[in-house]
Amino acid sequence: MAKNTNIRISLPAVCFVWQIAMIILFGVFIRYDEESDTHWIEHRRKKNISTNLENDFYYRYPSFQDVHVMIFVGFGFLMTFLKRYSFGGVGFNFLIAAFGIQWALLMQGWFHHLDENDWKITIGVENLINADFCVASCLIAYGACLGKVSPVQLMVLTLFGVTLFAVEEYIILELLHVDAGGSMVIHTFGAYYGLTISWVLYRPLLSQSRHLQGSVYHSDMFAMIGTLFLWMYWPSFNSAIADHGDGQHRAVINTYLALASSVLTTFAISSISQNNGKLDMVHIQNATLAGGVAMGTASEFMITPYGSLIVGFCSGIVSTFGYLFLTPFMEKTLKIQDTCGIHNLHAMPGVIGGIVGAITAASASESVYGKEGLINTFDFKDAVANRTVNIQGGYQAAGLFVAIAFGLVGGALVGGILKLPIWGDPADANCFDDDVYWEVPEDEDENVLSRHQNMNHARGIPDV
Amino acid sequence: MAKNTNIRISLPAVCFVWQIAMIILFGVFIRYDEESDTHWIEHRRKKNISTNLENDFYYRYPSFQDVHVMIFVGFGFLMTFLKRYSFGGVGFNFLIAAFGIQWALLMQGWFHHLDENDWKITIGVENLINADFCVASCLIAYGACLGKVSPVQLMVLTLFGVTLFAVEEYIILELLHVDAGGSMVIHTFGAYYGLTISWVLYRPLLSQSRHLQGSVYHSDMFAMIGTLFLWMYWPSFNSAIADHGDGQHRAVINTYLALASSVLTTFAISSISQNNGKLDMVHIQNATLAGGVAMGTASEFMITPYGSLIVGFCSGIVSTFGYLFLTPFMEKTLKIQDTCGIHNLHAMPGVIGGIVGAITAASASESVYGKEGLINTFDFKDAVANRTVNIQGGYQAAGLFVAIAFGLVGGALVGGILKLPIWGDPADANCFDDDVYWEVPEDEDENVLSRHQNMNHARGIPDV
Amino acid sequence: MAKNTNIRISLPAVCFVWQIAMIILFGVFIRYDEESDTHWIEHRRKKNISTNLENDFYYRYPSFQDVHVMIFVGFGFLMTFLKRYSFGGVGFNFLIAAFGIQWALLMQGWFHHLDENDWKITIGVENLINADFCVASCLIAYGACLGKVSPVQLMVLTLFGVTLFAVEEYIILELLHVDAGGSMVIHTFGAYYGLTISWVLYRPLLSQSRHLQGSVYHSDMFAMIGTLFLWMYWPSFNSAIADHGDGQHRAVINTYLALASSVLTTFAISSISQNNGKLDMVHIQNATLAGGVAMGTASEFMITPYGSLIVGFCSGIVSTFGYLFLTPFMEKTLKIQDTCGIHNLHAMPGVIGGIVGAITAASASESVYGKEGLINTFDFKDAVANRTVNIQGGYQAAGLFVAIAFGLVGGALVGGILKLPIWGDPADANCFDDDVYWEVPEDEDENVLSRHQNMNHARGIPDV
Repeated sequence: MAKNTNIRISLPAVCFVWQIAMIILFGVFIRYDEESDTHWIEHRRKKNISTNLENDFYYRYPSFQDVHVMIFVGFGFLMTFLKRYSFGGVGFNFLIAAFGIQWALLMQGWFHHLDENDWKITIGVENLINADFCVASCLIAYGACLGKVSPVQLMVLTLFGVTLFAVEEYIILELLHVDAGGSMVIHTFGAYYGLTISWVLYRPLLSQSRHLQGSVYHSDMFAMIGTLFLWMYWPSFNSAIADHGDGQHRAVINTYLALASSVLTTFAISSISQNNGKLDMVHIQNATLAGGVAMGTASEFMITPYGSLIVGFCSGIVSTFGYLFLTPFMEKTLKIQDTCGIHNLHAMPGVIGGIVGAITAASASESVYGKEGLINTFDFKDAVANRTVNIQGGYQAAGLFVAIAFGLVGGALVGGILKLPIWGDPADANCFDDDVYWEVPEDEDENVLSRHQNMNHARGIPDV
Repeated sequence: MAKNTNIRISLPAVCFVWQIAMIILFGVFIRYDEESDTHWIEHRRKKNISTNLENDFYYRYPSFQDVHVMIFVGFGFLMTFLKRYSFGGVGFNFLIAAFGIQWALLMQGWFHHLDENDWKITIGVENLINADFCVASCLIAYGACLGKVSPVQLMVLTLFGVTLFAVEEYIILELLHVDAGGSMVIHTFGAYYGLTISWVLYRPLLSQSRHLQGSVYHSDMFAMIGTLFLWMYWPSFNSAIADHGDGQHRAVINTYLALASSVLTTFAISSISQNNGKLDMVHIQNATLAGGVAMGTASEFMITPYGSLIVGFCSGIVSTFGYLFLTPFMEKTLKIQDTCGIHNLHAMPGVIGGIVGAITAASASESVYGKEGLINTFDFKDAVANRTVNIQGGYQAAGLFVAIAFGLVGGALVGGILKLPIWGDPADANCFDDDVYWEVPEDEDENVLSRHQNMNHARGIPDV
Repeated sequence: MAKNTNIRISLPAVCFVWQIAMIILFGVFIRYDEESDTHWIEHRRKKNISTNLENDFYYRYPSFQDVHVMIFVGFGFLMTFLKRYSFGGVGFNFLIAAFGIQWALLMQGWFHHLDENDWKITIGVENLINADFCVASCLIAYGACLGKVSPVQLMVLTLFGVTLFAVEEYIILELLHVDAGGSMVIHTFGAYYGLTISWVLYRPLLSQSRHLQGSVYHSDMFAMIGTLFLWMYWPSFNSAIADHGDGQHRAVINTYLALASSVLTTFAISSISQNNGKLDMVHIQNATLAGGVAMGTASEFMITPYGSLIVGFCSGIVSTFGYLFLTPFMEKTLKIQDTCGIHNLHAMPGVIGGIVGAITAASASESVYGKEGLINTFDFKDAVANRTVNIQGGYQAAGLFVAIAFGLVGGALVGGILKLPIWGDPADANCFDDDVYWEVPEDEDENVLSRHQNMNHARGIPDV
């Protein structure tokens, strides 16, 4: 079963080829938009914009930075919980996110922002946020494969993941005209994409590396850094591209409340499930975030503050039960090995979020939203000016199925590609081990042992 | 002395009951305010507001996120310094903050924002910030009890702490009409509340778990994450709800300078107090923050930049001396066991802050502030339109006594409740140990030992 | 070779003297500026400013906080990678940054903001950002000396470093009228300043502490916290004091892209350089940031998105090759011991940035920038209203030489001062060891050993 994990040619080749492709494609297609171009001052005059503050930069940049932290520190450190795969968790997260945001700017640009006159994509801060969102779906998928794939496979997973995401997003946002939020487009898609890949790459003998599949005390602490930055900044995630004014404001409040609520139910279920009521760090690190996922779609709606609390309440329970019962069941029965439990954190809460969004949209009324408020919130303009809230609810539900379908079919295809024996993935016995792809420093443990050997030397006890 | 620390029923029960109560109460009372409601667009038109940017969201949201990071990562990681209580430090901080912010929105809402017509509380970003502030006082109190209480006790501590805070805040802000800032209302109250609870719960045999009361190298590093995020974002803490414009701007500058100054005096006193001038991480982790606490009340005043430096200078010295002399004295003589030394970081600098605030207010003059500036800064309007700065100084001082009184009396009452033998708190010999309430992963140390045992096996040395 | 590392007198003395000097100088010179003073409301009326949002605070504060995080957490944790110098890495970074920002407010104030009428310096949020920038150059210099100097030496290094920086910045920004950005003024100067000091303080027997010069698994994880916060917030670093509107917006986009690109080339070169393609954490922690450094000068220019990718592409390669070949060469041949490899992360990318800036400036045209855009971007006003872009390119290049010259000459002088045997620096055998300046907690390792000794006791094996 010894596999060749030498990536000395393949990883540099993939990095160079794809980065050079990015440079060429950016050269052909990508330009600054009117708010980030030096002609902004003329644009301001023409559009009679009174102040530089109306540049979208000042509406969005603080939220963008929060989202950026979620992508690199949040997702990155959340994946450091394994005792011997922390380098791979945060390091490969860094690599694929840095590639993915570039490719996402292109893919999302082609679908949403291509100027029909000069075939250019113009970018500003909102594009940067959307690129981060797109990459989030690939990082979620990475969570299912954590420790079992090579960085080259991850680059392929990201290349196709971003591509699929852009198409799926186009269908949901532009064709179905669903104001999707992240629940479906990002979380549900990303989770089913990753789970399907993991199912295709099923490793029957993974138990050979079972001793590395747990955490140690301090790796759990590193993971909590990821958890907390995701938790704190999730209101920015759900509000970053919401409507200026009340839209961003309301999305923050709803997400904040849903998250707070899911913390309490996560602690409750975690405690009730163990002898003596002892809490499990895996639950605290993950299920506390379920409220943010589930609030993705409806965060801009008038779901009411107590409605947000209920969403968080339920998703915390569902997610924790997932870790307790579904993950072991899926591994044994469905042959899906889900290292980080993304089914519990992203798939199920994402589906909850899609359903909540559909119900909330279908029950929206002019009496609650106000006439203009209803139009603004659901963008009932132009082609969909006459859409009713009931029909909108149906379209929201349709969007959910599109997201799942793209995840399943895309994951099966990409999983098939990743099964080829050319990518340098580790053998079953070498999973979850940084030693395969990283120069790992001499360990503290080994320091102790070698010091101990010296002590034994001093005592005349021979070394092994 | 074996105690029953099984919280399998009590913790889930408390979490569920309180979260369900929150949902019901939010359903009855809490609504979006005019800036986070879809009717914002109509509100804008009615009030002739020219741009979405005038939505308070854009004035406050970046500061809110900084404060949020302080509450969850700042306080959370600051409390991870113990070698075997890092899970409890950051985890229980997470739990009680997530509950506390919900309860605070209600309590503060009833006292400050209840609409007399429809009995609703309307919330926006400023309420979220105030809820974070309120919770901060409970997290400070937790610092005194760290490692010695059960999560159920902490939920009770938070329930009553938030309640007391809201009343105390109402008296100080609304009745005394003191522009209090955080020094008194948050820090002084929270510290005396926690210290009194710790005094009631005095454990005479705590030395039985003395071997777990220190740090290890990497737990000190985790604590530094907390320290630095608190330190960096403290200017946002003191400015988050300051007046728009120069108020927020000045509060940032004053806090920034006070913090910088207290770093230098902390290093100085820490070094001078040890043989060879070696620095003590406990001081660096805590006393460097004293300048931020002490600047809470006066940060919006014209205290001048060098005035801020002096405040930081003194509070860094006082706080470090507190760790050197007062904490041991309090434990031995006053029977107050203060795990994190909150008396040094919050109580004393909070009192300094209250006094500085009173003096600065009393010496304010129209020649320095300008006529309008004086009115704006001290809100000399309506009921207090004729108040002079001298009288204002007196009221500031009265506010300080209210904060201390609420801490002492409230802490005694809540401490009495927490002394009941039903809360699942650990025995004296099991304090500071995550094993009591957490599933702790097999340890690195134990890895080494078991590997070592294997080596001994190989050498024919029998295991224990 | 036993050296006296007792700093019990010298460190407190330096801290107190310098902090008291700051208080006196701030009292004499520093006041609030018109946007942070209570007279802001009158200023608004006089200047006909319609909203509080036009207070520079709202343009700059979010970026300021990001930069602040880079200085204290970013630089601080990046320097925790050594197995036994993490306290010193993050702790001394904290100390010298807290002092440096105060001194920088004065030095930069005297050179840039001194009011000729009343001899006062007025400060606002932009001054706080500039102070952080100034301190960054000293923290870079600290990187070369990490583990080999005493905190007293670092205070001296910072005192002179800030002084030199302010003069150099004055020459480059005000006399040469170069819109310098950080590449030269901060990174190139800071790096050559630190490298020259390290060269003067060359330690021929440093190999005696070679066993402490590496990392351990978790110290590498702490360093990744620093790396990621630097990486994520670098767009704020390059845009924080850029022109309002399109200037800040464009600087963010360019920096974001350059950073993403340098991640991929860093991974590529790191992998190709090792047997089996294993990645080296030193490269990932450092060279991934080279794109941000190299984009410092040109970030506000119309360098185009693909131009930014190319800059990141090249600087990632150059920086990683530096770690592979230049650092060992410099240590052996040039006698420059560069602990953190600042030559690779700051010096070379800084020079690249200066050159890129000169070329981009020289090739700027009205057809690309627009007439007003060109004037705004390069500040072709007043004294330099008639400067052409070609001449501007020449001045940019001259600025680069000024920065290098100040680093070399200043470093030689300050290195000479630091060579005096009065500063309490460690012996060659005691470098990279926190035990010299910190109370280090009993270690986990030692726990294991002592437990192990107990086990041996139980087995009747005598202790050493």
